[in-house]
Amino acid sequence: MADTLPPASIGMRVEEVDTPALLIDLDAFERNLKRMADAIQDSSAVLRPHAKTHKCPTVGLKQMEVGAVGVCCQKVGEAEAMVLGGISDILVSNEIVGAPKLTKLASLARRAKIAVCADDAGNVSDLDAAAAVAGVTLDVLVEIDVGAGRCGVAPGAPALALAEVIDKAPNLRFGGLQAYQGSAQHIRAYEGRKSAIDSAIAMTQETVSLLASHGLECGIVGGAGTGTFPFEAASGVYNELQAGSYIFMDADYGYNLNASGNPIDDFENSLFVYATVMSRTTGDRAILDAGLKALSVDSGLPLPWEIPGVEFVGASDEHGKLLVSESVQGGNNDLKVGDKVRLIPGHVDPTVNMYDWYVCIRDGRVEDLWPITARGKLQ
Amino acid sequence: MADTLPPASIGMRVEEVDTPALLIDLDAFERNLKRMADAIQDSSAVLRPHAKTHKCPTVGLKQMEVGAVGVCCQKVGEAEAMVLGGISDILVSNEIVGAPKLTKLASLARRAKIAVCADDAGNVSDLDAAAAVAGVTLDVLVEIDVGAGRCGVAPGAPALALAEVIDKAPNLRFGGLQAYQGSAQHIRAYEGRKSAIDSAIAMTQETVSLLASHGLECGIVGGAGTGTFPFEAASGVYNELQAGSYIFMDADYGYNLNASGNPIDDFENSLFVYATVMSRTTGDRAILDAGLKALSVDSGLPLPWEIPGVEFVGASDEHGKLLVSESVQGGNNDLKVGDKVRLIPGHVDPTVNMYDWYVCIRDGRVEDLWPITARGKLQ
Repeated sequence: MADTLPPASIGMRVEEVDTPALLIDLDAFERNLKRMADAIQDSSAVLRPHAKTHKCPTVGLKQMEVGAVGVCCQKVGEAEAMVLGGISDILVSNEIVGAPKLTKLASLARRAKIAVCADDAGNVSDLDAAAAVAGVTLDVLVEIDVGAGRCGVAPGAPALALAEVIDKAPNLRFGGLQAYQGSAQHIRAYEGRKSAIDSAIAMTQETVSLLASHGLECGIVGGAGTGTFPFEAASGVYNELQAGSYIFMDADYGYNLNASGNPIDDFENSLFVYATVMSRTTGDRAILDAGLKALSVDSGLPLPWEIPGVEFVGASDEHGKLLVSESVQGGNNDLKVGDKVRLIPGHVDPTVNMYDWYVCIRDGRVEDLWPITARGKLQ
Repeated sequence: MADTLPPASIGMRVEEVDTPALLIDLDAFERNLKRMADAIQDSSAVLRPHAKTHKCPTVGLKQMEVGAVGVCCQKVGEAEAMVLGGISDILVSNEIVGAPKLTKLASLARRAKIAVCADDAGNVSDLDAAAAVAGVTLDVLVEIDVGAGRCGVAPGAPALALAEVIDKAPNLRFGGLQAYQGSAQHIRAYEGRKSAIDSAIAMTQETVSLLASHGLECGIVGGAGTGTFPFEAASGVYNELQAGSYIFMDADYGYNLNASGNPIDDFENSLFVYATVMSRTTGDRAILDAGLKALSVDSGLPLPWEIPGVEFVGASDEHGKLLVSESVQGGNNDLKVGDKVRLIPGHVDPTVNMYDWYVCIRDGRVEDLWPITARGKLQ
């Protein structure tokens, strides 16, 4: 559970919610859930959305209600929060290293279906030992590097070699391939994203075939993010899609272009940082009470939501600066101290990680409060 | 209290601490405390260090043990955490807007000495009303903009006008001036920083004199940060110094130059993000388990600490990428999966805000564990 009291009360008018707060527009959120379900209904792949985006079992359960088979996590602590919140099927789409984490991971497998990734034979041996101590059999996927240049062994022979190590480990089961192309997600041009994923699909297909020819069937072939999932969904190779951001969206994803060269509009912004104008001493600026501890700027600045004539131009630790001037189209001199505004986060995942609660709104009122129980679960 | 269990145990060897974790090197931290006390001992100004850096009453009390008169906070929630942790004298060096926060602020003044800043007459009226309800008298400083272009009225006549509003408010006491030049702190060249602060000092002096000529004495004239405090300390105008980062330092402050053109060495790095190598599938990269949710990159990437031949080249949500190659001076092919490394955060304040505990180390072992009780206190 989050340690803090909720920052709002159910039934409160949105304007009464104190700031900074993280708002979910429930109507938009629910439309996003449905849009994803619709988008992949003809695919042979199913959805296993990434819980690193929301860090909230309540959201994960809502994703599963509309078809998701479970969730992905990146951290064992995140997986623990999901299990405690009632999620029964988790893929840790990441390598887990070190005795304390391996012990916890294997213990979780006594309570839920747990799979994990590996890209190192020594780590596979450690996973096997931890599974033996816990008295469980762990599903282990081989992560292959399909172009992101991060974790993962090379596709083909190195993947086969590691899969065989897993297959021979007495307390492990070979679970398939993790083949996420993370660096393709924010290539702006549609053709660029498609080309990167075509390449990833080819490498994955080749590896799946090689493994099959050695008697190793891939239960899961997982990958895809919000920026590229239609390609993986149509590939016939990937059978699990791991998109996460689609439920909320952010400024960074908003800069991706579709096949027509227009900003993508598959999903809506449903997540906002709610902020208050705390200073207004000159005509050309309004200072908000949300800065670097309320908004992650790693992928660019947040965008004001439905406030014409305003530009978010900078953040310091606890302040956000809006340029309010005639140099910004439309101009906007109406903002005054105490006014509350919504901002689209620049990057949703690390922004969510700064908050303990979602304040869920509909029709101008607070309808629900969801604790972000995996907030800060770094380990 | 932090809601999570501590990520380590007292007495544990450092190498046993699970990652990511936030380490304080207690020897270096204590030397930094002493160095600041020594640096300002001949100044007429006293230290009121900024608790937004550490968000931990334990650290604040240690600062007060060596001479600090109290702490600064930026948020009411932060101030509440400090009061609960035993800090008895707090300046909220920021504007506080909105009924819920004003109610809490005024209530805190029943238990501790609380001052706050204002730059708006309407806000002063709201502060007065909240103080009346709580049955307290609040000290209110006028914030002036001395070059940072953020909050604050203009120096001179506008400051006088607002000070008179405060002075006349029945439940408020005029407390002085807040004159922080935030944008000067990271000007790299010594002369550039000095010039910006010379200008701030002149504006502050002029305003102090104007107020005095109208019978308004400034109890506090506050400002200064780790990048500029020697200038304010020597000014004879500022009487409270608000540096925060000096206790820990970070990569960003490490790029500032002293009068000789060398990197400043007033203080040492005492804060580190501890991370584990989780993937090592190619000769030229090592992937760490610390990314954007463990390290704020808003002011630049973290720096590896005492690991020759390695460069931190990128972060994604949960991964940090080290370039390990002969192209990096020295090269370093010794790093292997499971190795633990220390990183100097790029920017200390928002990095601290991602953690619930400090793991305090000395002589290779965990000596103490301090909860970061104001972590996430955004409001």
